[in-house]
Amino acid sequence: MKLYSYFRSSASYRVRIALNLKGIPCEYLPVHLVRNGGEQLAPAYREINPDQLVPTLLDDAGAPIPQSLAIIEYLEETHPTPPLLPREPADRAYVRSLALQIASEIHPLNNLRVLKYLTESLGLNEETKSTWYRHWVEVGFSSLEARLASDARTGTFCHGDAPTLADLCLVPQVFNAQRFSIDVNLYPTLARINANALQLEAFAQAAPDRQPDAA
Amino acid sequence: MKLYSYFRSSASYRVRIALNLKGIPCEYLPVHLVRNGGEQLAPAYREINPDQLVPTLLDDAGAPIPQSLAIIEYLEETHPTPPLLPREPADRAYVRSLALQIASEIHPLNNLRVLKYLTESLGLNEETKSTWYRHWVEVGFSSLEARLASDARTGTFCHGDAPTLADLCLVPQVFNAQRFSIDVNLYPTLARINANALQLEAFAQAAPDRQPDAA
Repeated sequence: MKLYSYFRSSASYRVRIALNLKGIPCEYLPVHLVRNGGEQLAPAYREINPDQLVPTLLDDAGAPIPQSLAIIEYLEETHPTPPLLPREPADRAYVRSLALQIASEIHPLNNLRVLKYLTESLGLNEETKSTWYRHWVEVGFSSLEARLASDARTGTFCHGDAPTLADLCLVPQVFNAQRFSIDVNLYPTLARINANALQLEAFAQAAPDRQPDAA
Repeated sequence: MKLYSYFRSSASYRVRIALNLKGIPCEYLPVHLVRNGGEQLAPAYREINPDQLVPTLLDDAGAPIPQSLAIIEYLEETHPTPPLLPREPADRAYVRSLALQIASEIHPLNNLRVLKYLTESLGLNEETKSTWYRHWVEVGFSSLEARLASDARTGTFCHGDAPTLADLCLVPQVFNAQRFSIDVNLYPTLARINANALQLEAFAQAAPDRQPDAA
């Protein structure tokens, strides 16, 4: 397999953790989102991923799969060990809903093209952009903290004592939040789970600064 | 089962289609996102869904499941007939990636709380808000059209000749786009699939104006 990735992209980061946890060898193909006017906008990459976003996985047949959660579900179905989703449907739904709270409610509002629209198309200043960014992280983290702090299934990780899809989304989002100076300790359960996850080699090796295209 | 829903919420609309296709009886619990200052913000609903968004499914045990895609995957696992995902992992990934292009790239930028932030917190006018809305729909629909128009798997529906998760996301997003005066015929494959889907009773009965809380 091959993964089009950008070291700082949190959606790419999720997939890198999944590949590491499952021990799947994968060639790293860097797509620099800032240099050269944004390499994801080049016609050659648009052929592979019309959304012009990272990540894109090329499966063993060379077919492109965009969207990090679709990629991770694919890896889960084709390489089931270790599992990234629990066994019972109600628990699977719970884990997926935590992942989607990040992937569909926080991250889409704060990715590069949206922040660019705020400053370049709407003419907002850097401070207003940062306030926007922090607002959506704080709304999302408050809700996640409320769920995780009160749910009996919370353990070392978001669901029990082994990492799941929810942790794969949480750790990159915490990394992003810290770049925008958000104090993650305001969300003690999230901070604790994040610290636990980063103890694992699979998470540590997926970190942005450990990637070949890190600045 | 019970579904907290708002007639115009496109995420609720996705779940309503899934319930109809699978023939699952479900009590409709309306949450009006505009009246009473937004019923989703009431403390009683926040207990059920800390994200204060719709939909939320209460499963047969009464446990709340938020996030429409988590709900639909849950329904797929517990009520597999008719399937809303194809059988092969690569095809399942493809369908999920189409669904996520809508659920994670278009819709989160255009839901009610984001539009409110644009006008109330950023002080932008209605025209700028509409331009924002249309921008993200047009970016997303262009990409979806490119993928669906060129993929051999496209049939009556997004994948083959039976509806899948991708169609469950497409039809409500087209409905939303039309409310903002976007000409969907600019995306002929999307327009064709949308029209095909609306021929099915399961889609037609899930439409906003057929819900008990329709204005």
